[in-house]
Amino acid sequence: MSLFKAVSEKSSDKKIKKIFEDIKRKRKISKIPNFWRALANDPKTLERTWRSLQQVMGKGSLDPLIKEMIYISVSMTNSCEYCIRSHTAAAKKKGMTEEMLKELIAVVAMANETNRLVESYQVEIDKNLK
Amino acid sequence: MSLFKAVSEKSSDKKIKKIFEDIKRKRKISKIPNFWRALANDPKTLERTWRSLQQVMGKGSLDPLIKEMIYISVSMTNSCEYCIRSHTAAAKKKGMTEEMLKELIAVVAMANETNRLVESYQVEIDKNLK
Amino acid sequence: MSLFKAVSEKSSDKKIKKIFEDIKRKRKISKIPNFWRALANDPKTLERTWRSLQQVMGKGSLDPLIKEMIYISVSMTNSCEYCIRSHTAAAKKKGMTEEMLKELIAVVAMANETNRLVESYQVEIDKNLK
Amino acid sequence: MSLFKAVSEKSSDKKIKKIFEDIKRKRKISKIPNFWRALANDPKTLERTWRSLQQVMGKGSLDPLIKEMIYISVSMTNSCEYCIRSHTAAAKKKGMTEEMLKELIAVVAMANETNRLVESYQVEIDKNLK
Amino acid sequence: MSLFKAVSEKSSDKKIKKIFEDIKRKRKISKIPNFWRALANDPKTLERTWRSLQQVMGKGSLDPLIKEMIYISVSMTNSCEYCIRSHTAAAKKKGMTEEMLKELIAVVAMANETNRLVESYQVEIDKNLK
Amino acid sequence: MSLFKAVSEKSSDKKIKKIFEDIKRKRKISKIPNFWRALANDPKTLERTWRSLQQVMGKGSLDPLIKEMIYISVSMTNSCEYCIRSHTAAAKKKGMTEEMLKELIAVVAMANETNRLVESYQVEIDKNLK
Repeated sequence: MSLFKAVSEKSSDKKIKKIFEDIKRKRKISKIPNFWRALANDPKTLERTWRSLQQVMGKGSLDPLIKEMIYISVSMTNSCEYCIRSHTAAAKKKGMTEEMLKELIAVVAMANETNRLVESYQVEIDKNLK
Repeated sequence: MSLFKAVSEKSSDKKIKKIFEDIKRKRKISKIPNFWRALANDPKTLERTWRSLQQVMGKGSLDPLIKEMIYISVSMTNSCEYCIRSHTAAAKKKGMTEEMLKELIAVVAMANETNRLVESYQVEIDKNLK
Repeated sequence: MSLFKAVSEKSSDKKIKKIFEDIKRKRKISKIPNFWRALANDPKTLERTWRSLQQVMGKGSLDPLIKEMIYISVSMTNSCEYCIRSHTAAAKKKGMTEEMLKELIAVVAMANETNRLVESYQVEIDKNLK
Repeated sequence: MSLFKAVSEKSSDKKIKKIFEDIKRKRKISKIPNFWRALANDPKTLERTWRSLQQVMGKGSLDPLIKEMIYISVSMTNSCEYCIRSHTAAAKKKGMTEEMLKELIAVVAMANETNRLVESYQVEIDKNLK
Repeated sequence: MSLFKAVSEKSSDKKIKKIFEDIKRKRKISKIPNFWRALANDPKTLERTWRSLQQVMGKGSLDPLIKEMIYISVSMTNSCEYCIRSHTAAAKKKGMTEEMLKELIAVVAMANETNRLVESYQVEIDKNLK
Repeated sequence: MSLFKAVSEKSSDKKIKKIFEDIKRKRKISKIPNFWRALANDPKTLERTWRSLQQVMGKGSLDPLIKEMIYISVSMTNSCEYCIRSHTAAAKKKGMTEEMLKELIAVVAMANETNRLVESYQVEIDKNLK
């Protein structure tokens, strides 16, 4: 059970309804994921997060697929199971193969190892990077 | 001051010397970064880490630049300053522009936010992702 | 299954019994939460934690409700599901409304985002804060 | 040195200028903190973050001072030095005394301890909280 | 459900088969743990991780049991449930008693508390430790 | 600069004085480390932490040196520089050699890697560990 009940996809609240429809149209999905239904308990956060995600995850200098992979990397480092699954599904839709995912995992894990090597040895910044 | 003194670039230890030369040649650099000089205090870890990083960060299904960006994303989530700087420098060499870096940062920060939204609302896995 | 079996509420161990009774009386509850039953496997830790929590969470300059909300914020940042639930329940008893909880979550999530913006941009301390 | 140079307070970029002036006016400060000057390297992120923070940190069911204290609690758990300092300064302006800060720290530290007790003992959710 | 299906213990892939047999022989177990079966989806990572773990966890200046306890401490700090359980089982085989485990947990929890006290008070390095 | 000024070793506050003397006597040191001088800003936290640490870190089923090493492992995972240094110094006094420290670091780093492999592959608990 969640802290809050997920808001029904058929919510009659106007603000929520509008955002849910926007999500379905832009994401080309027929069902609202539980993340958005949970956020709908707080319509201001729902709206802000949806607007922000569109800005942050949209096309720019980085390809949307690369952005999804960055997202997954953070979620893996934070051990957020829901986030890993939903963004893995999103990345696959955008072309991530299983081979790519396995390599991504290897990099994430290795980075978590060397991050601790650096912190444990308390490595000083190289002069040319200062 | 670090826990261990960084090993001199001119170490006369054969094993260390060989790895240092390999790093310089393959990375096309003339100075050994402090990370490797710190690890050289433990030659077995130096060797294993160098071998592993070549395997993990090399060309595969993912472009080495994308791998560097994944690396940076983990390091930012873990707040490892040295790691952020050294891998940002490496990624720039491989073609990451400042625009790309800014977008990467925005995604990393946003993912850290939504990861906590998910955990705080304790969102349940969507049926189609189970 | 937990690492250790939760100790029965009806434990006949004198030390445990006394603490369990103290918890029930002071918290005005009739059942010992699993947290305390788990800790009872290590009576010294049970006793120390119960004594410390009373000191730390009690009335002082900060209202006990505010302390509960700080507790929840830490638990959300650490993604500790049990902790989020039990302290949310405790905070509700002390007057936290659902509106307050939603705002708390929004702040926790946003802080996790801007913390990473700060670390990623490696923002320097402002002169007037040094 | 930061990854990006902090943008000058006297930036002539129109968008940045407007936000900087808004920050100074609403926060009643005469100097732009380094956080905002860093973000100004990415005007879209600057604008989004400023807008979001106003929404999230403003008056609601929770008092702005309580929100600052939640912010500090997250920043302490994440060990973000800049964030701890700047939000501590902000909270003091809003009335946080040194006594309150010390109690806040004690709660944050204790919560980090008990979070790990819970995870280490793998405590199961209490039936009445399911 | 995992992201990848665990590879069958009876995999006919030669490389995987060889490693699985090596794991069973050296660990004196008859069933391959799910960790290795998951990694087998990426044979290069399987091989590298198995080789690295043998080097890192083997006998050296530190007793293998102490290494297991260090491993558990990290896993508890990161709240990795699978890791806690599997390494607790491994440590018990090597002689860790329940009393030792309880003391280990108390230290891990306490360290997480004092780590935050240090970061919150922003304690400066003592002169004699610089 | 710290959030609070470190309390002078020569504090004339009776409670603080008594604890400072106890620390010096039991730790066989002539100078109070900055950690305790920082905590002295909050005498209740100073007293509770000193009392708790003596209970948790003292002799039991685990040797005090092993407890120090567990402490260091948590501090490395949390990247707490002060904590790493002060407990490394303490562990060396109790007999930790440089070889032991290097092995400890290798285990901590490796555990951080495999923790993420487990979370990324979302490995299921093995049946015999349930």
